[in-house]
Amino acid sequence: MNTGELADRYRDYLRCLNDRRWDELDDFVAEDVVYNQRALGLDDYRGMLQSNVDAIPDLVFTPGLLLAQGDMIACRLEFDCTPVAPILGFEPDRSRVSFAEHVFYAFRDGKIARIWSLIEPVGGDRAARA
Amino acid sequence: MNTGELADRYRDYLRCLNDRRWDELDDFVAEDVVYNQRALGLDDYRGMLQSNVDAIPDLVFTPGLLLAQGDMIACRLEFDCTPVAPILGFEPDRSRVSFAEHVFYAFRDGKIARIWSLIEPVGGDRAARA
Repeated sequence: MNTGELADRYRDYLRCLNDRRWDELDDFVAEDVVYNQRALGLDDYRGMLQSNVDAIPDLVFTPGLLLAQGDMIACRLEFDCTPVAPILGFEPDRSRVSFAEHVFYAFRDGKIARIWSLIEPVGGDRAARA
Repeated sequence: MNTGELADRYRDYLRCLNDRRWDELDDFVAEDVVYNQRALGLDDYRGMLQSNVDAIPDLVFTPGLLLAQGDMIACRLEFDCTPVAPILGFEPDRSRVSFAEHVFYAFRDGKIARIWSLIEPVGGDRAARA
C-alpha cells in the first residue's frame, strides 16, 4: 500500500466510525491493537469508542491535518459537538464544545496495530473563552 | 525541499532547542509564527520555550515518532525530565516525570510558520502509577 492508499484507508476507517458500523471495525483495527502503550485489544477499543459516542451522540471524526508516511498515519482530528453525559472529566451543559485529538497510528497488514493519542481537554476552548 | 530534507531540517531545529541556541531560532521559525491558532510571533515563541527550559533545565526534545509529508511535519516528542519549578499546572517534587507532546508543523520557505501542539499533562504518567 502506498501512502496515498494508506491515507484513503484511514479515511475509510473514519467513515466507519462516523457511520457507527461497529461490526466492521475489525476490517480496520487489529485484534491485538495497542492504545497508548496499553494492550487494549479490538473488543475493548470498540467499547471505548462506543462509550465516547454514548456520551457524545453527535461526535463526528473530522481530519483537520493528515500525514501518511511508510506504515504510519498522523492526524489532527477536530471535534465540534454536544456532550450529553460526563466524558473525560467534562460535565456537559448541552452547549457545543470544540476540541482536538492528535493521534498517530502504525498500520500492520493494512490494519491499525498501534495508536498513540493525546486529546485536548473537552471544553478547553469554552474554558479559554470564559 | 523533499520530505527527507524537511525531516532533517526539523531534526536540526530540535538540536537547536536542545543546545539552547536561542539566537539561531530565527533560522528555523518564521517571524509571524502561529501557535495553536494564536499569532504568537517569534519573540513570544522563543520566550515560551525559554520559560519551559527555566522550569525544566534538563528538558531534551526527543522525536519518538516523526512523519514528513509535503510542507508538514508531525512528531511525537517524548520527554523524560525533572521539573524544578511549577509548569503547566504541575507542582514539581524533584522526581523524574515522563510525558509526550504531539505536534504538527507547517513549514513555509523552510521555516516553521504554524504549530498545532497538544501536551500530555506533566506528571500524568506518575499520576497514573499512583
